[in-house]
Amino acid sequence: MKQRPFVIVSNDDGLSAKGIQSLIGILSPICDLLVVAPDGPRSGKSCAMTTDVPVTLRRIKSVPHLRVYSCSGTPTDCVKLAIAQLLKQRRPDLVVTGINHGDNSSINSHYSGTMGAAYEGVMHGVPAVAFSLCDFNPDADFEPLRPYIVDIVFKAITMGMPMLTCLNVNFPKAPKFKGVRVCRMARTHWENEFTKARRPGLPGAHVYWLTGERVDDEPQAEDTDAWALTHGYVAITPETLDVTAHGLVDVLRDVF
Amino acid sequence: MKQRPFVIVSNDDGLSAKGIQSLIGILSPICDLLVVAPDGPRSGKSCAMTTDVPVTLRRIKSVPHLRVYSCSGTPTDCVKLAIAQLLKQRRPDLVVTGINHGDNSSINSHYSGTMGAAYEGVMHGVPAVAFSLCDFNPDADFEPLRPYIVDIVFKAITMGMPMLTCLNVNFPKAPKFKGVRVCRMARTHWENEFTKARRPGLPGAHVYWLTGERVDDEPQAEDTDAWALTHGYVAITPETLDVTAHGLVDVLRDVF
Repeated sequence: MKQRPFVIVSNDDGLSAKGIQSLIGILSPICDLLVVAPDGPRSGKSCAMTTDVPVTLRRIKSVPHLRVYSCSGTPTDCVKLAIAQLLKQRRPDLVVTGINHGDNSSINSHYSGTMGAAYEGVMHGVPAVAFSLCDFNPDADFEPLRPYIVDIVFKAITMGMPMLTCLNVNFPKAPKFKGVRVCRMARTHWENEFTKARRPGLPGAHVYWLTGERVDDEPQAEDTDAWALTHGYVAITPETLDVTAHGLVDVLRDVF
Repeated sequence: MKQRPFVIVSNDDGLSAKGIQSLIGILSPICDLLVVAPDGPRSGKSCAMTTDVPVTLRRIKSVPHLRVYSCSGTPTDCVKLAIAQLLKQRRPDLVVTGINHGDNSSINSHYSGTMGAAYEGVMHGVPAVAFSLCDFNPDADFEPLRPYIVDIVFKAITMGMPMLTCLNVNFPKAPKFKGVRVCRMARTHWENEFTKARRPGLPGAHVYWLTGERVDDEPQAEDTDAWALTHGYVAITPETLDVTAHGLVDVLRDVF
């Protein structure tokens, strides 16, 4: 029998979130895990890293096949520290992040700390998969995701991933899924992004709370992640970290 | 004579940084500006947004052709607030961010708050250009950049930019530039990313400071931003926010 895969796990909802605990429960019977997750919620942190203060790592658990650390930094910091400071002899086969409480498809991917942590793996040459469930309920049921996650993780490890790419996997809220669709990112945008509120204690002053709704700009397109999720499918979107707009390079050479 | 262009300006080094003040100095004679910048340094914030606390905006200046606000949030929050709360009749022609104190080329683009602010414009359908100087000196000389910035801003406004794209413009440190090159992102990675340090007051405890050096994985490739900067050229890299790995979609449909 071959060696168990070695997987780094992180998220952006924090180590105590049900999503990452469910992910650990799904993967720990079949993989060796190094879990490094934020010590509290870090939603919307994108690829942010901590540059102005030092970061603290705390060892929570260390048993055969499972090491768990909490980290005072961002999801990106967590994966950076896992790779730079906590590896022993073995290189990881995969970075797996999530399971996020909430939708990280389409434009949300840019803001997501769950994706930021996955990107960080890719930047270190480790393939990565991010899992998200379109349900913000802190007690959401992640059990229906189990067979899909096992299948996707094993396939990602077995086939590998091309350089600079990762998988962004989103599950619709429905407890049953119609199947899996490989997608492209939908074009979407956010509206009504702030709610203005009074600032107690300072008469006349106000503050802005981030709010809003995401709008799908191409709801008829059946090849997008947003369409798949709206129609009950699991959406697998391959993403690249080479964000060069290659089609524009030659065009712009005539301009500049 | 046509109307002056209307430009939103932001950055990640904060409103008091010399880079954004130089940018305002370069653009204010020729554009109407709405400046919304963080009230302090926000380097490495990527597309992070503030979700857990409200954000405060403070009006610093409002004279003809120039409105300036400071913001307690991230670069992304700044541009979101500018567009969602501070526009009057007119839609902006361009979002311009920077001038960043430091290199935002290649992999750094993912971590950069200067790029995060530019991306936010693009997400709202406004073309965007980010400017960075490969010099961390807080008193760096931005004057040599002036003619390039004016040229690039005018061309970006005149020709427009395709949907979901922006320009990431980096200037080498040299006071004279050999010219301009339109580039792709180089493949690079970071090494030695942390320095472990004692935690005063807690015997035996330690913390991690983010440090490190970026390594160019393809230093011979002459079409990259890293090559251009190393060889004294201004690097213009067009970036896309559609991060779908399009080449992988069909491949993965055979797998999942």
